[in-house]
Formats: sequence, structure tokens, C-alpha cells
Amino acid sequence: MKGQHEKMWQGLGLDLGAHDALLEVLKKGYQDVYLAQKNRPEGMGYLDFVMSEVHGLRIKELIDEKAAGRKVIGSFCVFVPEEIVRAADATLVGLCTGADFVTEEVERFLPRNTCSLIKSAFGFKLGKACPYIEASDMIVGENTCDGKKKSYETLKDLVSGVYVMDIPQMKSQEGRALLKAEYFRFKEAVEKLADITIDADRLRKGIEIVNNKRKALHRLSSLRKANPVSVSGLDALLVNQVQFYDEPVRFTDSVNKICDELEVRTGKGEGVFPESTPRILLSGCPMAVPNWKLPWIIETAGAVIVGEESCVGERGVRNLTDSSGSTVDELMEAILDRYFKVDCAIFTPNPERLDHIVEMYDAYQADGVIHYSLQFCQPYLTESIPVEKALEARDIPTLRIETDYSLEDLGQLKTRVEAFVELIG
Amino acid sequence: MKGQHEKMWQGLGLDLGAHDALLEVLKKGYQDVYLAQKNRPEGMGYLDFVMSEVHGLRIKELIDEKAAGRKVIGSFCVFVPEEIVRAADATLVGLCTGADFVTEEVERFLPRNTCSLIKSAFGFKLGKACPYIEASDMIVGENTCDGKKKSYETLKDLVSGVYVMDIPQMKSQEGRALLKAEYFRFKEAVEKLADITIDADRLRKGIEIVNNKRKALHRLSSLRKANPVSVSGLDALLVNQVQFYDEPVRFTDSVNKICDELEVRTGKGEGVFPESTPRILLSGCPMAVPNWKLPWIIETAGAVIVGEESCVGERGVRNLTDSSGSTVDELMEAILDRYFKVDCAIFTPNPERLDHIVEMYDAYQADGVIHYSLQFCQPYLTESIPVEKALEARDIPTLRIETDYSLEDLGQLKTRVEAFVELIG
Repeated sequence: MKGQHEKMWQGLGLDLGAHDALLEVLKKGYQDVYLAQKNRPEGMGYLDFVMSEVHGLRIKELIDEKAAGRKVIGSFCVFVPEEIVRAADATLVGLCTGADFVTEEVERFLPRNTCSLIKSAFGFKLGKACPYIEASDMIVGENTCDGKKKSYETLKDLVSGVYVMDIPQMKSQEGRALLKAEYFRFKEAVEKLADITIDADRLRKGIEIVNNKRKALHRLSSLRKANPVSVSGLDALLVNQVQFYDEPVRFTDSVNKICDELEVRTGKGEGVFPESTPRILLSGCPMAVPNWKLPWIIETAGAVIVGEESCVGERGVRNLTDSSGSTVDELMEAILDRYFKVDCAIFTPNPERLDHIVEMYDAYQADGVIHYSLQFCQPYLTESIPVEKALEARDIPTLRIETDYSLEDLGQLKTRVEAFVELIG
Repeated sequence: MKGQHEKMWQGLGLDLGAHDALLEVLKKGYQDVYLAQKNRPEGMGYLDFVMSEVHGLRIKELIDEKAAGRKVIGSFCVFVPEEIVRAADATLVGLCTGADFVTEEVERFLPRNTCSLIKSAFGFKLGKACPYIEASDMIVGENTCDGKKKSYETLKDLVSGVYVMDIPQMKSQEGRALLKAEYFRFKEAVEKLADITIDADRLRKGIEIVNNKRKALHRLSSLRKANPVSVSGLDALLVNQVQFYDEPVRFTDSVNKICDELEVRTGKGEGVFPESTPRILLSGCPMAVPNWKLPWIIETAGAVIVGEESCVGERGVRNLTDSSGSTVDELMEAILDRYFKVDCAIFTPNPERLDHIVEMYDAYQADGVIHYSLQFCQPYLTESIPVEKALEARDIPTLRIETDYSLEDLGQLKTRVEAFVELIG
């Protein structure tokens, strides 16, 4: 996608040399991890195309939208309600992370012992390699973990348009009041940015667009319950990842087309892996493009991932927002209801998450759980220990992995995953 | 203190062997770090005695109080309002931390990459070596950092009486409402525990006891502004540490006696170190007994610590609580006002802290700032980078230290601190 987009990237202030090098690595990684897979659904061709143009045509679309007066809002977290953004005819995009970039430079701004996800986001900004952050009119930082919360103070000095959203730590009455106030404040900020007043019709339409996307993803998840499974975990993860970048209505249609194809496959008893393949539920931290390391290890170790208990997975999309309200207040309350259910490890206590892992383990006929934590991610790392104990008490085989975005531990991870797959096989 | 207290320790369920070994190490450390100092104020004899009986006579006092129907409440944080505890005739004590203990056992419950303070607290519980936690009727965990917040979920399984207090992350209207609700909930919990209704008189008396303690500590701080300085930073730190263990009225009297003596010294121009000694402001994470590593390195490297911008220091005690209110609601509001000013790094943003560091640097005639962060303490580590940059922009020499409770980095720290002292000397 290099030649045709160079001027656009230049206009966004990207470092063309560094960005080209990044795209090369991304392309090679995609080839090795994705295109090397066998029996992929034809519908994944759409995802291949989106990925090949994720810094190209998609950015051009955003810039065209901006030229037409629409706004782009960047985010790092599933607590930012896309319903409100869509209601103002604006577009919500995930910001770049998922790969190490100019780490030495990043460590001038953040502690070395910060998780890869945060360091990567800073690296893409400092290294001028993320067209999404450069195209954003507003960047929403949310006070989830300490690492993000404190790093946004520094991000504010590096990029304009940072808006901080506070998030509660307990699901108490006051926690709910705090989130409610923050969602109303966000609505006002979006209205001001887009110069649009969000009325009930707009908000309902926003909810419906986002719900339809979620419903398509639920359909995809549901199809993965079959054995043999008709789609790889890697491909399903990619669909979950691309939801943060692609135009939502087109994306929804494409996911539904993939599901149509998978339904036919399932009807014929066709799978991407043999019926005897050990089935893994992946649980833990979110995995952003191109962080495919652990899923790739799992699926090349003879297992298949059948579900992701993750923000980039069911934690992010499991609940719909009730669109039946007739006033802005009623619809905002419905949005609040929906997001307050998200069982992120930043909440204390967070018992719903364990329930959900067990529920998914049963529903997807999994044979074991691999819990994935990013190194230095205190909330998920700390929660992973009681989660592992609780799962093992229910005789659910569990493997706890702590890793980062580097490839240094590839060999060690492969050995551990292979041993686990053999154990549950 | 071994023989006479053995039965008491046994009664509390301590592991006598491990506890004896701990006391031996503590005694030796105290000798090397504290008793080896020259020109100590005579009044520090009281502190020496308190420290020699910190697991002995002081625990006996608590047990006697309990026998008389009073309650003991343990805490890990300066956000737990002692005013409310005193108003119910109960005693607030800091729980043991500050030294590595049964770390291998701890890492079965908490991630390896958890800060020393939290791991140590768990170590003292798991190793059955903290008489304070065993004597506590209620243990207050507060949702400050992710590490503590998530670890209390596990602590609840290890010890009874854990009460979790939510703390806001932003100093917003909703943040204040959350803290207010939490302080009222805490008051009710303490009333129920102590079987006492806290009226305005009780609350005012509680405020006065705690204010008097703070005023004595302010007096001590103020005396350290003189050059030469009449007390070592190590001794001043010890006073700040012991405030979390000792009976507050007696402690206040003892601190005032030390101050009387220091006033005489200062009047005569007498100091513990020569006038030319480089003066250091220590800023950052709290230091609990017996975590004296960095202060000891600084003061044996030819410098003197003249102030602590820390929870165990001015951040913890700088503000008084207004006791002029006539109703419980007014006094509770005053307590809220006071604690909402605490400039802990868990808040975002936290600009008051930088202001306060600069203010202390000037007031205490410091020559440089040493910023101390515990490894894996995301809030203080992240904040330390912009703090260092802001201080250096004002030509304030700054040294950023990241360490833990181990002695492994002693040599490296000594080298860095010595070079810094030479630079500012």
C-alpha cells in the first residue's frame, strides 16, 4: 500500500521510513501467521484485505470523513461507549499497540516496568508510526489500571486532544454514579467536538449500529461451539481485533457473511482442525493487532482456540445495550447498565469474571484454559492466581502465562504450551 | 523482649521460631543503623525503647485494651481516618511491612512483580510474624494502587476482618462524593465494631488527638529547617514511622520533648552533622519500619535528609483537620476536606505533589531531591519521570532511585548516591 498513500502519511506527520519498515514487518508477520493457515473460510478474504489496507485505505476513509466534517475519536479501551460516538456521526477507532516500537525512546517517558501494551502505544506515537492517533480529533484515555491512568498525564504532553475518562474501581452505588457522570460528561464533550446535539433518535441509532456489530460477533462466537470447529482461533481473534478499526456497518455485514459460510461448513461437519483437536479457552489481557504470538503458538502446537475471555473477545462484546428507551436519559441509563457489567480485572472484587470463564469453558466445550497476562499488568496478573486456583478446584486444566510483546520467550512458551496441550489432549 | 512475651505471642498464633529470628535481625539492623549514629538527641531514647518493645509491651497494651472492650484496627495507608477510629475509643495501628519475609510462600498468592511493600505485608501474615495483624479486630484495605486493591481480594481469604475502603482516582466532584460515602460507611462500620455511637463530642476529641500528633510532627519538621540540622534524617524518619504504632497521646508528648531538646540545640547552633553537609529532600514511596536502606545509604554518604515528601512524612501529616464544626456532619466534612488534599500518586492528575516538593525543597534549604520508588510501584514510578523533569527544569538536582527491600543493590545504590552527594556538595 506504500506508493499511493505516501502523501497522506506525510500529511499526518508520520515518519515514512520507520512506518514503511513497520508495514514490512506487519506484512511478513501476517503472511507467516495468517496466510500460512489451511482451510480458511473464504470470507476471511475481506479481513485479509482490511489488514493489507489498515494503514492505507481505511485511513483515507477517515480523512475523507474528516473533510466532510465528521470527527474521529481514538481510544484504548472497551469502556469508551461507541454508541455515544456513533450518535454524533463520529467514528471510534482503536489506537495502535500490539508491537514493540522505539522502546528505548519510550523508556524516557515511562518506567521500564510498564506493560507492553502501554509502552507500545507510546512507541507508535513517539516513533510517528500510527496514522490512527494522528488522524484523531480526540483521544480518550480511561482510568482503568494504574499504568494507563498515570501514563495519560504524560501522553497529554505528547499529543493534543487527550480527554481523560474516570472509571470506578468498585461496582458500588457510588461507582455507578461516577460512571454515569463520566458518560454524561463524555456525551457533552462529543457533542461539542462534533457540533451535534445527541437526541434520542440519534442515540438509539448509535446503539443499534453497535448492537448489530456485537450480534454478528456473538453469531461468530456461537458457531465456534461446534466440533469440529469451522474457523481457527487466530481468524476469530482477527475479526475481534478488526472491529476496532473498520467501519462498523460494513464490518458487521462482512462478519455475517463469514458466519453464513461457517454455518454451511458446520452443517457439513467440516472443520479447520480435526474433531480430536484439544480445545482451548483463552482468558486474560486484550490482544491488539499484531500481537498474535500466544494464539499462534497454541494453534501450531496442535490445539484450537474456541473462545477469548478478553476485551478483544467476549468481555468486550458480550452484552447488548437496550435500545427500547424513548428519552436520552433512558438510553444513557441503558448504556450505563451495559458497560457497568464489564468484568474487567480493574474492579474489586470481580467474581463475575470467574463465573464467565467457567460458563464459556462449558459452552465452548473447552478442554482447558490458558490464562494470558501481560508482564507488569498488575490487575490481570494478580487476578490470575485466584482464577487458576478456582478453575483447578473445578478440575479445569489451567495454564498461566505471563509474557510481553518480544519474541525472546518464544521457545519457552512453545515448550510450556505443547506440554499443556499434550496433557489435555 | 523474648522471654516475658512468649505466651502472648503464642496466644496470637505467631510462629515463635520465625518471629524470634525476625526480632534478632531487627535488633541487629537497629543497632547498625540507629544506635551507631553520633550526637543523637537524648529524647530519641524513648524511640529506642518503643522500638525494642514494638512487638512486646506495645502489643501487651493492645491486648489489655481489647480485654477492656476496646477495638484495634489495622491499616496499610494514610487514607484511613484515625480521627474516626479514636472517636470510637479504638486504636489504629499500621500493619507490618518493610522487610522481605517468606517471599517464596508469598509468590504462591501474589505475582512476583508486586512491590516489596505488599509482598512484605503478605509475608508477615503468611509467616505468622506480625502481632499487629493478629491483634486487629478489623483490617482496612484501601483501593489505592492496583497492587493493593487486587491483593486485598486474596488477603480476605487469609485473614478475617478485612474491610475494603474505596478511594477515588480523580479529585472531581464525583471523586469527593465517593470518598464521602466511604468515610460515612467506615464510621458506621467502626461504630458497629466498637458498639459506640460517634457523636460530635467524640469526633471532635478524636480530631484533636490526631491533630496534636500532627502538630508535634510539624514542629519536628520545622526544626529541621535550621542549618546545621539538630536531628538526623534517620531519627526523624523513625519518629514518623513510630506514629503508626505508638499510643498517640504519649507519642505526641514524646515528640514534643524531643522538639524541646532540638530547640535548645538549634539555639546553640549545634547540629548532628556539620553546617556544610549537603541537604537532601527525600520524596516518593512510604518507608515502613525496618526499611531504612536508602536513608542509611544517604546519611553514611555524607549527606543529611532534611525532609520526607512521603506518606511516612509530610504527605501523611501536613494538613490538620478543622475541629470547629458543631455537628457530626460538619466534622465529617472537615475530615473529608483534610484527606481529599492528600497528594498521593494514585490521583490523576496530581500537580499538587510537584508544588509541594518544590515548596519543601525551598523551605528546608535542600540542595537536591532523591526520588524513591519501590520497584513495580506503577503510580510513583510513572510520576517520578515528569517530577524529575519538572525539578530539573527548575535547576533542582534530582536523583531517581528504584529499589526494593533486598540488599542486593546496596553497592550500586551507594555508588549512585555518593556521586549525587558529591555533585550537590
